[in-house]
Amino acid sequence: MDFSTQLNAFIAQTDQALDKYLPPATTRPARLHEAMRYSLQAGGKRLRPVLVLSAAQLFTGKKHDPLTAAVAIECVHTYSLIHDDLPCMDNDDLRRGRPTAHKQFDEATALLAGDALLTYAFDLLARHYPAEPGFALMRELADAAGSQRLIGGQMEDLLAEKKADATAGELEFIHLNKTAAMIEAALVMGGLTAQANEIELAGLRQFGRELGLTFQIVDDILDATADSATLGKTAGKDAKAGKTTFVKLHGLEGARLHAHEHTAAALAALTKLPGDTAFLRQLVEIMLVRKH
Amino acid sequence: MDFSTQLNAFIAQTDQALDKYLPPATTRPARLHEAMRYSLQAGGKRLRPVLVLSAAQLFTGKKHDPLTAAVAIECVHTYSLIHDDLPCMDNDDLRRGRPTAHKQFDEATALLAGDALLTYAFDLLARHYPAEPGFALMRELADAAGSQRLIGGQMEDLLAEKKADATAGELEFIHLNKTAAMIEAALVMGGLTAQANEIELAGLRQFGRELGLTFQIVDDILDATADSATLGKTAGKDAKAGKTTFVKLHGLEGARLHAHEHTAAALAALTKLPGDTAFLRQLVEIMLVRKH
Repeated sequence: MDFSTQLNAFIAQTDQALDKYLPPATTRPARLHEAMRYSLQAGGKRLRPVLVLSAAQLFTGKKHDPLTAAVAIECVHTYSLIHDDLPCMDNDDLRRGRPTAHKQFDEATALLAGDALLTYAFDLLARHYPAEPGFALMRELADAAGSQRLIGGQMEDLLAEKKADATAGELEFIHLNKTAAMIEAALVMGGLTAQANEIELAGLRQFGRELGLTFQIVDDILDATADSATLGKTAGKDAKAGKTTFVKLHGLEGARLHAHEHTAAALAALTKLPGDTAFLRQLVEIMLVRKH
Repeated sequence: MDFSTQLNAFIAQTDQALDKYLPPATTRPARLHEAMRYSLQAGGKRLRPVLVLSAAQLFTGKKHDPLTAAVAIECVHTYSLIHDDLPCMDNDDLRRGRPTAHKQFDEATALLAGDALLTYAFDLLARHYPAEPGFALMRELADAAGSQRLIGGQMEDLLAEKKADATAGELEFIHLNKTAAMIEAALVMGGLTAQANEIELAGLRQFGRELGLTFQIVDDILDATADSATLGKTAGKDAKAGKTTFVKLHGLEGARLHAHEHTAAALAALTKLPGDTAFLRQLVEIMLVRKH
């Protein structure tokens, strides 16, 4: 199966599972469940679920269905976007061309829908897996989404926006935690559903870290270089906001060099993994040259 | 040990454990961890941790330390208060005589501190317990805090505030989920740390449900009858806001009758439990006659 066919198959499986595993929109309170579904079904790249599924696919032998883990991590990602869009955070009216949750519903409903999606991720893992691998999946997710990783990265990002002189160390903390943490967790969770051993899990984590850093640096490069039409969102937003970005700190060429280095490190991490890693190799290569 | 001595001992153990198990306020990002600690250390009745500890104490035999579960459930309770106090929800400036988190810090920090406390509850359970009873503890907490229980109750409460004609059924949904769910979970989690069997867990759940309903009805009665000085918060707030309360629906005498019935049902549930249930019996009796 070629890369695009495989990618689209993973996305289609994820979308079906999201619809299947989320409580119906009529579940009481209906407004809350409608808002949860509205935000989850906004589409998007489904990068984290795709990583769960592609990591699980590397392994042969006894496996648990990775789809529930894929849905759980997308619930956490979506909660973080809903809260990030709120007026007290980034105050965004649109996401992927549709009104954000607090615009479509209201702030309170968006806040609670985010809270509910975070909680539901743990609920799903607890209900669909036995204690092994369920407990390890929940531990991985709680750590990656926690105050020293995802939420910590969001907090530092917010603090950094208020000052134009964030340091390279501060920016690295943000990239590693706001972006790479959940990408790492997706790969590790995929491995956990397939009973990967400690060495394999470490390889997945290393690959995820480098993929996450590549992803974020390329994001900064695109914000500085692409036009809004190609990007599908407002370009130049970071520079306009006076925000410290990777490009501002290291220059365009420096940023490109770093992106290539992290890609190379990601590819090196792949060599430690079993199975057919072609899909993950192509994913990181496409990540590097993407235009939007 | 008499009731007050035991109660104060449970509260002191909880307060010490909260300090010990939360990341230090200097942990990066410091502002986030300061806000988490600020809200957790605001004091309060510590009802849910006390219930975890008192449920665990009923059982003899091999036990896991219930204190981590007590801290975890207080983290979830505190997150729900932080988010409930936000401007888009109840918009409260004060809680227990101190500025609410978004007043002391800012809205974004309060939002993220709430998110972080919810996530940390799962992290704590995953790190401090083995898979048995850790997985069951996480499942119980995720269910009680979820979109059909705690968050669902908050959502319906919010919707009910906008209409003066909420029905008895709507009010029951709110009480059962916004209040009773976490009280039930506290008792069940205490039992789980002490390897209670299914029948014992069902007894704890039943006791928690009736205790939670008693607690909430007495809250409504006090709001309607006590003066602000005795109550320690603004009395008559619900009536002034035109909110449907138990007293409004059933009258004062009707509400008192219901509170007595739920107390009797709680005491009946206690008879199914092993060990010395004197503390829990006194707790529900004091709950019924409390003045604040």
